[in-house]
Amino acid sequence: MLVALLSDFGLRDAYVGVMKAIIHARAPGVPIVDLSHEVPPGAIEVGALLLEEALPYLPIPSVVVGVVDPGVGSDRAPLAARTDGRYFVGPDNGLLSWALGDEAEARRIDPHLYLTPRSDTFHGRDVFAPAAAALARGVPFAEIGTEIPSWERLPLPRPRRLADGALAARVIRVDRFGNLILDARAIDLPRAPRFLVAGRTIAGVHRAYFEGSDLIALIGSSGRVEIALPNGSAADALGVGRGATVRVEAG
Amino acid sequence: MLVALLSDFGLRDAYVGVMKAIIHARAPGVPIVDLSHEVPPGAIEVGALLLEEALPYLPIPSVVVGVVDPGVGSDRAPLAARTDGRYFVGPDNGLLSWALGDEAEARRIDPHLYLTPRSDTFHGRDVFAPAAAALARGVPFAEIGTEIPSWERLPLPRPRRLADGALAARVIRVDRFGNLILDARAIDLPRAPRFLVAGRTIAGVHRAYFEGSDLIALIGSSGRVEIALPNGSAADALGVGRGATVRVEAG
Amino acid sequence: MLVALLSDFGLRDAYVGVMKAIIHARAPGVPIVDLSHEVPPGAIEVGALLLEEALPYLPIPSVVVGVVDPGVGSDRAPLAARTDGRYFVGPDNGLLSWALGDEAEARRIDPHLYLTPRSDTFHGRDVFAPAAAALARGVPFAEIGTEIPSWERLPLPRPRRLADGALAARVIRVDRFGNLILDARAIDLPRAPRFLVAGRTIAGVHRAYFEGSDLIALIGSSGRVEIALPNGSAADALGVGRGATVRVEAG
Repeated sequence: MLVALLSDFGLRDAYVGVMKAIIHARAPGVPIVDLSHEVPPGAIEVGALLLEEALPYLPIPSVVVGVVDPGVGSDRAPLAARTDGRYFVGPDNGLLSWALGDEAEARRIDPHLYLTPRSDTFHGRDVFAPAAAALARGVPFAEIGTEIPSWERLPLPRPRRLADGALAARVIRVDRFGNLILDARAIDLPRAPRFLVAGRTIAGVHRAYFEGSDLIALIGSSGRVEIALPNGSAADALGVGRGATVRVEAG
Repeated sequence: MLVALLSDFGLRDAYVGVMKAIIHARAPGVPIVDLSHEVPPGAIEVGALLLEEALPYLPIPSVVVGVVDPGVGSDRAPLAARTDGRYFVGPDNGLLSWALGDEAEARRIDPHLYLTPRSDTFHGRDVFAPAAAALARGVPFAEIGTEIPSWERLPLPRPRRLADGALAARVIRVDRFGNLILDARAIDLPRAPRFLVAGRTIAGVHRAYFEGSDLIALIGSSGRVEIALPNGSAADALGVGRGATVRVEAG
Repeated sequence: MLVALLSDFGLRDAYVGVMKAIIHARAPGVPIVDLSHEVPPGAIEVGALLLEEALPYLPIPSVVVGVVDPGVGSDRAPLAARTDGRYFVGPDNGLLSWALGDEAEARRIDPHLYLTPRSDTFHGRDVFAPAAAALARGVPFAEIGTEIPSWERLPLPRPRRLADGALAARVIRVDRFGNLILDARAIDLPRAPRFLVAGRTIAGVHRAYFEGSDLIALIGSSGRVEIALPNGSAADALGVGRGATVRVEAG
């Protein structure tokens, strides 16, 4: 059983290390993998995207812990869910919803699993790490808490069709290389597409990053359309970031 | 036995990876957890704080390695210590002192444990990683080196009482979210406190981050008072950082 | 068997986590260590340097995965190599060449090891992680692919001798502390050297960082000459970075 962690905690504090120490102590021998802890603070959609991207590569079974939790301490439920042989743990705020799909079995994590005392500010430590450790060491899912019929769903990011037939795509994530990752997939694109962004026009869809010296569009490793600048950062070159709109026209 | 690492080495170089490779090779099967490697360069107090915060969540037994070591190569001792069932390894410069408390048994790491040759610039690799690996694989503590009667103590950060009865608290750490973590704890606060910082006044103490849309004070997950900006960075909003003073008055 | 990872993927995306999940799933129980993922995007030479620095401290046997791969999707070969009891996996673009030396046995990773479908944009996930996992779980090296007679070599960074007898050294890496790491080693230096950089002159070679309050030169932990500012960043103080020239004169 692998435990995979994602959060917006960053790595400068000991928040993630403390979660791992708790999991190691309670589920000895279980490997722990970081998906990312550099989700922008509170950016639930970015966290959901990274979970969705990573999901096909996570072993079955595994325990996925996601904590991007601006509502920590409010009445949002602490969620545990199971689908396709994987377990998920995190706040019920939409973060896990794209990974969960429609067929998951969901439970509200029971207080008997919490650390005592439990803070109102750090449920990654006090609620989600112990719940993940319980699942990782084989506690039956039914013992994690009471079943709940539904959970918060985050709207799926999709390009919009404009009145003139063009698409309005949105930059939903900027990766480490400055690639602009759009909400559009190959199937959404017209034949011979043209991408208009920040006053620039980019024609066609390339296969790989090395195939250009100026801005290009291509299908990235997650299946989404990306705007990239080979040997540079498209985000810096265009001066745009998350939330920016890219107009897609037929060529 | 878990090995927990903290340093100011950052993650862009291979310094931390090399330490881990040495520990894995000499103590096979021992899990290694990063507490933080983003302690600001040379910031012994920040490192000491993160160790203090993480300590209650580290399993017993475990080996805690802390390396924030601006005096590497000088005559400061390489320290190994034991208290409450945990081992500690690092430079004798105060970094470990809050975690050690008053009852620890301390030893000077013996040169027979060093890598050969031993540099004067990287004792994390040449001294502390091999010592930690020795403890992790079960070498008796008495064989680590000669007992020493005392070690460097870092002054505990405490708010000062001003002549007019107010408290002068200090920002001792800024976390990833821009929360300003003070040297004061709940017990230090007057009834209905007011916090004055950078020309702003913040009234009362909240329970959780979601309970406000402007600057708030609350008791953070480590038990210290924090100034926070829900959905934003208090550090950025106030333009203050580590070392800044916050005046605390009775309401 | 240890698996050591180096890349320019950074830690804000899930690229590294996905590689680790694949390795854990296919080579259960194998520890994975990060050397660095903060190699500047596409900076093959920096990656090669970090691998060279870490190499003496990596256990035998181990599997070293290096992915700094601006040519992903082109016809550059996916390389696996063996030398001195360690295995290496990565793109054939020079990244691995300093670690491989002259005596390695090299093979082209066979497509039967790839994930299906294999992208043209992320071979760390689709090619190198599965190949590393195969080696880590004991697949014989001969089964990794067809032997190839040679591989891309990166020129070794060496200081140049100037017409007037001085040396022109180059900053090949800036570390987390702002230390400027040069292509020169102790053996290259004249007696009583003077270092001229950005209008400043630095005399002599110190033993350790604490031995100065202004800019100093010393031999760093990797055996290369460094320009350092104790309790500060030489890179910031001098306003220079990777690629800058340092003139070295006899005193």
